[in-house]
Amino acid sequence: MTSPSAIKWSANQLALLDQRILPNRIDYISYSEPLAVADAIRSMVVRGAPAIGIAAAYGMALAAQQFANKPMANAADWKQALQPARAALADSRPTAVNLFWALERCDRAIEEHGSRDLVTALCQLAEQIHAEDIEINQRIGDFGASLIPANSIVYTHCNAGALATGGYGTALGVIRSAHRDGHIRGVIAGETRPWLQGARLTSWELMSDGIPVTLAIEGAAAHLMREQRPSWIIVGADRVAANGDAANKIGTYNLAIIAKYHGVKVMVAAPTSTFDATIDGPQIPIEQRPSEEISHSFGQRIAPENVAIANPAFDVTPADLIDAIVTEHGIIHQPDRAKVLAHLQAAAQQ
Amino acid sequence: MTSPSAIKWSANQLALLDQRILPNRIDYISYSEPLAVADAIRSMVVRGAPAIGIAAAYGMALAAQQFANKPMANAADWKQALQPARAALADSRPTAVNLFWALERCDRAIEEHGSRDLVTALCQLAEQIHAEDIEINQRIGDFGASLIPANSIVYTHCNAGALATGGYGTALGVIRSAHRDGHIRGVIAGETRPWLQGARLTSWELMSDGIPVTLAIEGAAAHLMREQRPSWIIVGADRVAANGDAANKIGTYNLAIIAKYHGVKVMVAAPTSTFDATIDGPQIPIEQRPSEEISHSFGQRIAPENVAIANPAFDVTPADLIDAIVTEHGIIHQPDRAKVLAHLQAAAQQ
Repeated sequence: MTSPSAIKWSANQLALLDQRILPNRIDYISYSEPLAVADAIRSMVVRGAPAIGIAAAYGMALAAQQFANKPMANAADWKQALQPARAALADSRPTAVNLFWALERCDRAIEEHGSRDLVTALCQLAEQIHAEDIEINQRIGDFGASLIPANSIVYTHCNAGALATGGYGTALGVIRSAHRDGHIRGVIAGETRPWLQGARLTSWELMSDGIPVTLAIEGAAAHLMREQRPSWIIVGADRVAANGDAANKIGTYNLAIIAKYHGVKVMVAAPTSTFDATIDGPQIPIEQRPSEEISHSFGQRIAPENVAIANPAFDVTPADLIDAIVTEHGIIHQPDRAKVLAHLQAAAQQ
Repeated sequence: MTSPSAIKWSANQLALLDQRILPNRIDYISYSEPLAVADAIRSMVVRGAPAIGIAAAYGMALAAQQFANKPMANAADWKQALQPARAALADSRPTAVNLFWALERCDRAIEEHGSRDLVTALCQLAEQIHAEDIEINQRIGDFGASLIPANSIVYTHCNAGALATGGYGTALGVIRSAHRDGHIRGVIAGETRPWLQGARLTSWELMSDGIPVTLAIEGAAAHLMREQRPSWIIVGADRVAANGDAANKIGTYNLAIIAKYHGVKVMVAAPTSTFDATIDGPQIPIEQRPSEEISHSFGQRIAPENVAIANPAFDVTPADLIDAIVTEHGIIHQPDRAKVLAHLQAAAQQ
């Protein structure tokens, strides 16, 4: 793997690869303030559900560092001290559940450690979440690849790659593993308006790894599925609900419907940290992002002034359009509520 | 109607509204050379199947003017003289059949007039095709509007408006007529990558007419159909085949599949000049346009260098996904080969 890491941590300093300017420039921004990390998540310096979770954990570590020299009597004092940072991070993006999952792991660390070595504990926790994520992606990749027949064209959307995770990627992890197995004839990457993660990130990641990729606009999906007959659509997720519905980058629900029409299978590749067993798909909050993401391109206006714009950042694909959800614990075929809950229970017991 | 004309003809001079820079600038380019008109069609100064047909007819009129002072013995001499212009115009864009339909009407005028007043005849023919198109659109608009229930949200793609035709529009003609009838609660316009005709042209046309429009990316189609429950998807066409399949801007086939899934109806609004009874959908030639339309935005690179790009400009929606094809002669419900051919026969007898 040759594409650079989205997230670097060394000498207790966080550096995030600025994904807004890729692939034209490779530029890391350094962070020592948790509120700046929250801004980086909101403004999409870092993006992708697992990467957001990792960045949030580092944000909490940075917050703790700010109190390294102040005496804290107990966990409650720490909680209060870290509350502004936690609130800003939790408020940065609403849809990806990994963010809240990471913050809750930090909460538990605070409870466990109280006043003892919490700075070190939160730094180690963030590093652990980061390292675990890479291993998890490799397991997802191998489970997913077991479903990909030889000589496959596969289709992906947005970027669920190394850049969206600790490394290796979820959907692109599956594609990397399947390519290693010699099963990938080609990948079609949707450009993914408005942020063009497919054009800027996915095609770049795949080219860096020597995996053959063809870039297309979202509008070409049905035409290309008819012409190219991909075996699978492979995407990541920002939240998988109890009933097996999956929220992912806007346009995923389109692809799943179009795939079903053409007899193409749909795979969602996501760690169990992306699951939210407390709600069903229709309750997943959908982030509405600023109109300017659609009305402007490189600072130039591309739509009339004052035009009304709908800019939902995610959509929810119903479970009955999904053929497989692949996690680090295995494959949920034809997901439904019972299978999702059984999968999570088995995972918790491992 | 307040949006400006795509095509102006006065004092035997052609002026085309440069649609590549709308809505930021309203700028007409003058043409006196037929080869320059062919370039204008290829480079999308003018676009939209009916508008391309009109522009091509004016291109032939300009070609004839160049020989106004040269003696021609007969139709064969004229044909030979006009051949380079005809070939360039025919070669400008392959998918929209209106282009060939207009050139064939010019061919017949040459046969009929021979050496007598052909310059005048071709100018008059182009003006007639232009004027007819506006009337045709108004008839299409009224037939189509009869299908739109009160309080409707409708969804359109690309621009099949006044700017794509002689005036009034095909799909937007239906929306204009339905709005006049008080049946339109709102229009959703897909931005239509890569040229952004929805963002730049359709939203601007509709706002100019005071018709409420919301702009969205193509990726949001399924999400918005679920949330907003449009009554109809309404699109134009570049070619309607004998079996009722319709070629239109890439992304239309996506929308038709997504509409079917959500129980939303699909209307194709197109004059009979857009019909090609000689072939079926799978034989319609699909224009592949330059990669740079996708790899660059406003001169800035948005994809890695040398990435492979698929850029089909059109797709073919199969007839069984279309609920109604609306022409100037009426409505073909649930189109199939028999109904399409019967419609064209009845039209020819009127």
